[in-house]
Amino acid sequence: MDPAEQSGGDFNELFDGVTFLTKLFGIILNKLMLFKMELKKDAKIVEFLHPADLAQSIDLKLSLEPTCDKTLLNLCHPHFFNQLYGGIDLHALSGAWLSDALNTSQYTYEVAPVFTLMEKVVIEEVKGLIGFETRDGLFCPGGSLSNMYALNLARHKMFPDVKLTGLSALPTMCVMTSEKGHYSIKKGAAFMGLGMNNVITVKTDERGRMIPEELDKAIVKAKSENRIPIMVNATAGTTVLGAFDPLHAIADICQKHALWMHVDGAWGASLLLSKNLRHKLHGIEKADSVSWNPHKMLCVPLQASLFVTRHKDLLCECHSFKAKYLFQQDKFYDVSFDTGDKSLQCGRKVDVLKLWLMWKAKGTKKLAAEIEHLLECASYLTQKIANTEGFSLVLKEVAPVIKQRMIEQGTLMIGYQPDGDLVNFFRMVLVNPNITNSDMDFVVNEIIRLGCNL
Amino acid sequence: MDPAEQSGGDFNELFDGVTFLTKLFGIILNKLMLFKMELKKDAKIVEFLHPADLAQSIDLKLSLEPTCDKTLLNLCHPHFFNQLYGGIDLHALSGAWLSDALNTSQYTYEVAPVFTLMEKVVIEEVKGLIGFETRDGLFCPGGSLSNMYALNLARHKMFPDVKLTGLSALPTMCVMTSEKGHYSIKKGAAFMGLGMNNVITVKTDERGRMIPEELDKAIVKAKSENRIPIMVNATAGTTVLGAFDPLHAIADICQKHALWMHVDGAWGASLLLSKNLRHKLHGIEKADSVSWNPHKMLCVPLQASLFVTRHKDLLCECHSFKAKYLFQQDKFYDVSFDTGDKSLQCGRKVDVLKLWLMWKAKGTKKLAAEIEHLLECASYLTQKIANTEGFSLVLKEVAPVIKQRMIEQGTLMIGYQPDGDLVNFFRMVLVNPNITNSDMDFVVNEIIRLGCNL
Repeated sequence: MDPAEQSGGDFNELFDGVTFLTKLFGIILNKLMLFKMELKKDAKIVEFLHPADLAQSIDLKLSLEPTCDKTLLNLCHPHFFNQLYGGIDLHALSGAWLSDALNTSQYTYEVAPVFTLMEKVVIEEVKGLIGFETRDGLFCPGGSLSNMYALNLARHKMFPDVKLTGLSALPTMCVMTSEKGHYSIKKGAAFMGLGMNNVITVKTDERGRMIPEELDKAIVKAKSENRIPIMVNATAGTTVLGAFDPLHAIADICQKHALWMHVDGAWGASLLLSKNLRHKLHGIEKADSVSWNPHKMLCVPLQASLFVTRHKDLLCECHSFKAKYLFQQDKFYDVSFDTGDKSLQCGRKVDVLKLWLMWKAKGTKKLAAEIEHLLECASYLTQKIANTEGFSLVLKEVAPVIKQRMIEQGTLMIGYQPDGDLVNFFRMVLVNPNITNSDMDFVVNEIIRLGCNL
Repeated sequence: MDPAEQSGGDFNELFDGVTFLTKLFGIILNKLMLFKMELKKDAKIVEFLHPADLAQSIDLKLSLEPTCDKTLLNLCHPHFFNQLYGGIDLHALSGAWLSDALNTSQYTYEVAPVFTLMEKVVIEEVKGLIGFETRDGLFCPGGSLSNMYALNLARHKMFPDVKLTGLSALPTMCVMTSEKGHYSIKKGAAFMGLGMNNVITVKTDERGRMIPEELDKAIVKAKSENRIPIMVNATAGTTVLGAFDPLHAIADICQKHALWMHVDGAWGASLLLSKNLRHKLHGIEKADSVSWNPHKMLCVPLQASLFVTRHKDLLCECHSFKAKYLFQQDKFYDVSFDTGDKSLQCGRKVDVLKLWLMWKAKGTKKLAAEIEHLLECASYLTQKIANTEGFSLVLKEVAPVIKQRMIEQGTLMIGYQPDGDLVNFFRMVLVNPNITNSDMDFVVNEIIRLGCNL
């Protein structure tokens, strides 16, 4: 091919790509603004179609031949914006977009110099919020994996041989978590060869908080059964009731038994940002490690999950493999800045920029104010429900039917579940800082309306 | 606060957010276009600063008070664009941006209906490319974790009790991989309680391919030592030499010993898209599972990694926990579409859209053509190096010094490493479909220039 012609072809292709990106930018911006300005508050949240019907209505099939941009934009448009989470922060979104465009990997300083330093800055800041003296940590692909990092470090600290020789020659180990703790501890125990049966669930009080005396009993009992406890998982913000385990008391028990204490703060650690709310996490400074998901209460786009520990060299000891094709020790710069070998991953997506950009833009003060506002809305809702007839006692089949009506009518989307002996109930998740008390009123009224003839 | 005033405040904030997003979009677009049009080919690829100097030059610190958007844009601008990967595809980037803006999670049909179906469509397509009869699979946060999914399924198939009771009562298990295989198998073995010493590395031939007779010997030897092999990891495209293990022969050995065969195709499975190249992976259809990272050779923004298996129900059996707050069985739609319980994660980022959008836009044909072009460039480079004096034999200290000069002068960025008995050498990674033979010439000439006085 003639080089000029070749370069003309390249230019056309580039022009088409840029045009597509720009049109899509326009569509996203328009939808985001409409959504945020709430001009369409009476529009449906979701146009529900059952899987078979949805599959019929959109041409998802891949083929040998290309599909033109116009068709693609038409294809995406009506279906993808069915669900838009109003809570998204525009600085965080900017950070996510910039990370996508730069598309580097967070494994060596060389390929991600700024993001390597930025990750250190964020972890240093979180260390301060927790109250650790020293720190190490990294961004993980979600809270479940962050919790599994904790399990691995706890196990490595007590049984460093596991890394090389495995579990088969070692005694049975076990892990304590509350009966309301997140299921990732069990998934992790299964994946990591500990076994789900060796996750011992400790009883909680009427508000879903781990009972310290029960923890102590469980540890003693496990030892008497020749199971060796390696970690206690305390929860700051359980998934269903939002309970905060009593961290001080748990820390004392961990200290007494020389056990690793992990705080699963995937939800609740965001409260550390607020001077008025951080008392709910008193004692967290005594933990060995903490998980925190800014993609939950802070509305950073998925995924933004931090694992932080006060043990300075353990992540590296436990995970390093020193792969020669990435982590050469004869590089010309300080290779302690290459963080990849601390990680279970190889390539690691840059998740820090979106959080950092939002945090830098808003400052800790504003983040704290938003979280305080969310908690106030939650407290208003609690009050309102207590004062609304019919909300204290529900029949077993009510929640699933009301949920179906919500989705079919597209007015609300709230999850439901049972909890222990309690029947199905709705679980309100508040993360969008733009919500107000009147939104809370809407939720209650809508549940009444949808459930009126049940 | 007066409601009108409140809403005015909200509007100003929204306006500021949208302005920031738009300005950043402009900057990204400008940089992408400049880069792609190669107007700045003589500009530096990287402005290297050592960690301490970089930390001095950019204000990364977080604070209580907000930082204004102008400062933020100025802060980002010069530093973040140091490294821009030219290979990025603009449709894939559009898909990444849309995923970020929608910010839903790939765990239930309810919250991600289109993406649930789309993931099925992509996995079905990959099943066809591999040649599996049935399929299951999901997107994972990277190839290392995809490989660990394989390890867990292999273990579960042979020892289903591990999920509940753990490894401590079971015999020592082991895993075979080639000495050039990816280190994630060892990291996975450590994490999953098998132990790195129980990863048995099988010898490779002079081109880095696993020697089937050596595999067979290693399996027999392990059994004689009372170690039970659970999986063979074959590699399609090793990290350093790009070798493809002989999959047919390995499949026969796995069948003989009734072992799970995994193909780590993180790099090489992209060749399945091309009718002319897929012969390199002949035999892959006999595997039990395959990993493939479209974020490598196809230039989809991080992260895009697929795990696919021909065992239909094993992912769910092995990983499910049936958390009641997400995966209620009394929902009003077909809950087999809720994919979250197959996963090790809880929330799962939507990674499918960027791949799907690019694939739909280009069609399989164009993707295949791009991959064929990359392989042609690699082959041209190989020829050229063979014909260029001084490139066949290098001294131990040459590569690190040339690499330092590359980075300091900012003209190239190529990794180096030793390999077995071979001394440090450069590892060329070709992923950008826009490269040409003249880029290959530039690489060789630049290495000569930078190394001329060594």
